[in-house]
Amino acid sequence: MASDGDKSDDAIVQNRPISTILLVIAMQTEALPLVNKFQLTEDLDSVFPKGVPWIRYHGVYKDLNINLVWPGKDLALGVDNVGTMSASLVTYASIQAIKPDLIINAGTAGGFRAKGAGIGDVFLASDCAFHDRRIPIPVFDLYGVGLRQAFSTPNLVKELNPKVGKLSTGDSLDISTQDEASITANEASIKDMEGAAVAYVADLLKVPVIFVKAVTDVVDGEKPTAEEFLQNLAAVSAALDQAVTQVIDFINGKCLSEL
Amino acid sequence: MASDGDKSDDAIVQNRPISTILLVIAMQTEALPLVNKFQLTEDLDSVFPKGVPWIRYHGVYKDLNINLVWPGKDLALGVDNVGTMSASLVTYASIQAIKPDLIINAGTAGGFRAKGAGIGDVFLASDCAFHDRRIPIPVFDLYGVGLRQAFSTPNLVKELNPKVGKLSTGDSLDISTQDEASITANEASIKDMEGAAVAYVADLLKVPVIFVKAVTDVVDGEKPTAEEFLQNLAAVSAALDQAVTQVIDFINGKCLSEL
Repeated sequence: MASDGDKSDDAIVQNRPISTILLVIAMQTEALPLVNKFQLTEDLDSVFPKGVPWIRYHGVYKDLNINLVWPGKDLALGVDNVGTMSASLVTYASIQAIKPDLIINAGTAGGFRAKGAGIGDVFLASDCAFHDRRIPIPVFDLYGVGLRQAFSTPNLVKELNPKVGKLSTGDSLDISTQDEASITANEASIKDMEGAAVAYVADLLKVPVIFVKAVTDVVDGEKPTAEEFLQNLAAVSAALDQAVTQVIDFINGKCLSEL
Repeated sequence: MASDGDKSDDAIVQNRPISTILLVIAMQTEALPLVNKFQLTEDLDSVFPKGVPWIRYHGVYKDLNINLVWPGKDLALGVDNVGTMSASLVTYASIQAIKPDLIINAGTAGGFRAKGAGIGDVFLASDCAFHDRRIPIPVFDLYGVGLRQAFSTPNLVKELNPKVGKLSTGDSLDISTQDEASITANEASIKDMEGAAVAYVADLLKVPVIFVKAVTDVVDGEKPTAEEFLQNLAAVSAALDQAVTQVIDFINGKCLSEL
């Protein structure tokens, strides 16, 4: 029956071992240790259009095709293409090119001490929302918040025992008074600059997504965010990479329904 | 000589009549009068991937292939997919599918009375930047602002005599205190929720882009933005459509270098 087609497709995907993983990572410092760890190689012929700075690394690790995409550096300024727009574009283009079974958005994040987050903690996000898209018109307000669930992984949580919390996303490294109110409304334990954008595109194209985020700075602490972020970026990236490796090892050989 | 290849290509594009136009419009209320005006028809087989809500209308008007894309409505909430993420995604996918000679991002905007903007005014943006991407780390700060020039159209400005000013883009309909400071730093006459995102993707894929924006609400006036926006949306969309028609009539038969 035609109306059951999608449901059957979903069931098939849920019940065969995961084969192709798409890792979306915003910063080179976060990405390179994983490229080395999984011995991934950079594409010589890009799967992306001519001119875009996005980079795919890929390789086989155990039974998995690992694709790590990084939006690269701004062609004029030379800094990493952080933030929601590049994250959404590279996720969209990668899903089209790679057709992954599962997306893992891994990266660093700010953490809220009031929610139990400390430097170096690794979180698995239960859901994502935006804190800098205020549209005070009924229904548009909900669109702006853009709440989306991560793919549910009860067995992964049981096995690896990460902290679990809500993630709030915005395009600024700092937070304004209004951002803070929205983050509180989002009940977020951690904040980043890409998660909810990756969640949006994954939802649009119906690919399950999980979020592994390591805390580089305590937002409600004493130190200025930018300083603390830069100070901890390299060390926390190592903790992040260890956690991502554990997640990938857990995923290997399993179906989506077993996560 | 290989190194001159791109330059020659550019020269050819600059000196043959513009053939394919991509109109990027965020809201249905803004788009439909133009769909009717140019007698465009909605694609039966979408040029976009299965599942996305984006809609292309197209048709031939005078000597131009007109493509109007609208990111559609949120599948769960039913409101227009406004903001930078949908605008960047639909612009990216449309450039891939349509290979336009020129992009026109048309829409409504908030205007600043202090910069001479009033309700119903039509602006051509000279450049775009973001006001809600604060990254207080050297160079990353400039990346966040994301200043980009519109394609230069001195003859169009001379002929149609629109107001010309800088456009500032953010994902909120209202403005926070920090947004206001950034908008002032951007020297913006008008603010919207898509322009700088369309500019970013157009720059990435090297397609010239212009911005036609009609003022629905005066940001530094007495009335609340949301109320004034909703009150004026339909009437100002009519002024916008008239201006876009004038722009398209001017473009018809001309090369990029003649704009």
